[in-house]
Amino acid sequence: MPPTTSLPPGAAQAAHAIASGQATPGALLAEVQDRIRTQEPRLHAFAFLPGAEALDQQAARASRLTGGRLRGVPVAVKDVFDTADMPTAYGSAIWTGHRPRADAAAVALLRAAGAVLIGKTVTTEFASYTPGPTANPHDPERTPGGSSSGSAAAVASGMAAAALGTQTAGSMIRPAAYCGVVGFKPSFGMIPRAGLKPLAESFDTVGSFGRCVEDAALLAEVAAGLDAPLLPPDSAVPGFTIGLLRSDWEDDAEPAQRQALEDAAARLRRAGIAVRELPPPGIGWLNDRQGQAIAWETARAFAWEGMAHPEMLSAKFREICARGMAMTATEHRLVWLDIARARQVVSAMFEACDLVLTHSAPGEAPRGLDATGAPTFNRLWSVAGGPCLSLPFGRGPNLMPLGVQLAAARGQDGLLLAAARRAEAILAAG
Amino acid sequence: MPPTTSLPPGAAQAAHAIASGQATPGALLAEVQDRIRTQEPRLHAFAFLPGAEALDQQAARASRLTGGRLRGVPVAVKDVFDTADMPTAYGSAIWTGHRPRADAAAVALLRAAGAVLIGKTVTTEFASYTPGPTANPHDPERTPGGSSSGSAAAVASGMAAAALGTQTAGSMIRPAAYCGVVGFKPSFGMIPRAGLKPLAESFDTVGSFGRCVEDAALLAEVAAGLDAPLLPPDSAVPGFTIGLLRSDWEDDAEPAQRQALEDAAARLRRAGIAVRELPPPGIGWLNDRQGQAIAWETARAFAWEGMAHPEMLSAKFREICARGMAMTATEHRLVWLDIARARQVVSAMFEACDLVLTHSAPGEAPRGLDATGAPTFNRLWSVAGGPCLSLPFGRGPNLMPLGVQLAAARGQDGLLLAAARRAEAILAAG
Repeated sequence: MPPTTSLPPGAAQAAHAIASGQATPGALLAEVQDRIRTQEPRLHAFAFLPGAEALDQQAARASRLTGGRLRGVPVAVKDVFDTADMPTAYGSAIWTGHRPRADAAAVALLRAAGAVLIGKTVTTEFASYTPGPTANPHDPERTPGGSSSGSAAAVASGMAAAALGTQTAGSMIRPAAYCGVVGFKPSFGMIPRAGLKPLAESFDTVGSFGRCVEDAALLAEVAAGLDAPLLPPDSAVPGFTIGLLRSDWEDDAEPAQRQALEDAAARLRRAGIAVRELPPPGIGWLNDRQGQAIAWETARAFAWEGMAHPEMLSAKFREICARGMAMTATEHRLVWLDIARARQVVSAMFEACDLVLTHSAPGEAPRGLDATGAPTFNRLWSVAGGPCLSLPFGRGPNLMPLGVQLAAARGQDGLLLAAARRAEAILAAG
Repeated sequence: MPPTTSLPPGAAQAAHAIASGQATPGALLAEVQDRIRTQEPRLHAFAFLPGAEALDQQAARASRLTGGRLRGVPVAVKDVFDTADMPTAYGSAIWTGHRPRADAAAVALLRAAGAVLIGKTVTTEFASYTPGPTANPHDPERTPGGSSSGSAAAVASGMAAAALGTQTAGSMIRPAAYCGVVGFKPSFGMIPRAGLKPLAESFDTVGSFGRCVEDAALLAEVAAGLDAPLLPPDSAVPGFTIGLLRSDWEDDAEPAQRQALEDAAARLRRAGIAVRELPPPGIGWLNDRQGQAIAWETARAFAWEGMAHPEMLSAKFREICARGMAMTATEHRLVWLDIARARQVVSAMFEACDLVLTHSAPGEAPRGLDATGAPTFNRLWSVAGGPCLSLPFGRGPNLMPLGVQLAAARGQDGLLLAAARRAEAILAAG
């Protein structure tokens, strides 16, 4: 991948350039279109790209607006969000060519703020496991991660200034790490889900990708319909403590990933941030349990697809649905008792520290495009329902990007973003 | 309204009659169609009724099935659920003639169990306040309640053997009381919401109407994709205690309603059930707070409608959206702190008793079709997220039906239904 200095500006910079008259929506669009022309043929990040005329109309509309926090900013949206002017297929042949009548709420909120919707990004089948064609911008023979594969790859390669994704198990934090971008999963429910195809509604969370913390924060706060920035000014951030979590799945982390986490903790400490070690929480069973809870809900959410078009579901997806339908109500109740226990464990963590620092993914993006890697280090945070964020940090033995994850208690989105911005500066400074 | 003995059978009886060969799907369908012919012109319970041929095909399909817990049972579905073979307008002119590509998950699960979908029932605008044309079967000059207006009226008048509805504030329990039927709102999340138009996703809950507890339980357990009945056999029900709640809104209950609650408690006591008085919880502010939480979410969920078709929203709906968008993030956070407090109050109630007995509605269905009554006694239970159920009991001064509400802790759906079935028998015996 070319050096990032040649990339079109990220969301915050683009918004600022337009608001201050240094750039026009049309000029920014042209930059991104150039980038798409060169990168998309090798990355396949988009499920749909509108024609030049439709994009020009969007840019012209943005030019006529007098305000809008994303005026003229070219953003991309995972193809699990309905769009009225672009087909929406949810990563499944069952829905090929589907034309929703309305935009999803989060999309409408982006447009209301003046965003230019540059395209729909590739998702795995229904934001589950079976991948689309997207390649990792850092090595096209490796997965970008999933399920938000295209959003992560588009942001990493400069084909979008920021992008919306979703996470149910590890669908944002892992691809963010694999692609070397910031992935931000806000508190559960912060960004509206109307017009989003549900996978497992107890966990499905809308979030954002950006090339820096500020980009991801800007997109998320607009998609949430917030009246004020989530990210407080630097001067308003109180001190915070970080708990370093070597989780119950530590053996699944590659040596380089473990080293990156240690290095990140050491650098934050050297910068004067209090970093203390947390004991392993002893909830190694949680990942299985979340898988079961998701299977139960997925089986039900896709009852229509399962009845009407079973042959168009992947074998893996059919297996998940079959497993979910085979569970008894008693098993389901027990799964949720364990999930409640895990949530208590996380609550206790945030009595000992303000933020948790842990792995974003097991390590480098795996080779091959037939799988998207494992959500091992993500499920707990999808269960907890608080905000979490992946910061790019370090490289693996194949020079692929690695990521470290920061997490906070539910509702502490502003604190998480502020701490992440500070960590971002510290980790970048070396 | 004619005596109920002349009504077509309810869901449980119909399912049994077909399973045992005493009736055919075609014969049951014909009974319901007769009923629709005479009642629908005065009640306007349906937003859409399929043609005779389409219904015959459904009945023929049901006849060919060898199993299915709702085989051949004619059910109706509130027009906020997507249906692939019937238009779905969510009670709004914006969506008139909308043809979803798929069935909502709950609808698909009913069909998988062999149900015949008799039609889509009238909802208020987007399951919010502005009513449709539906009249109360007990007095067509009075509201059936809402937002699940048509489902309650259709079940009360025998035009459906059971029906799906939704509740966000008081949209099932209140219309059930006004129409003299059983309304069952299961635990939050029990019935899948995929393909349901969201109003306020923190509260939107799918539930069922039936003419008796068994009917409502059967529809809900099938729509939830459960493998076993929610309603345990009578022999398996343990003893339970009931807390009698004269809530913080007691002044809003009409004298006849207050009397009905006292009478119900007295009858249950005489039947040997432990009924103890609960202290007023002291959370009179909760109803306002839920209104604010809903406004916040509604404003965001309908961002597309608000941008694309503001003139087609009712003034009331626009006002809710404007109020929700005007809230600051800080106000929203405070609302949710209060909601968390209210949830703790409810949890404490269920440490003092197994079930709470309280009002379903302020009293009789109000006169006029321009409003659907007040969710005063419902919001707390929509906030709590546990199951609740309205049992018809008593009559008001205008001989309109009244209802009493039973509620249980989240997850205690089986206990609630078992207690409700027992209470139903006791209250019917007098």
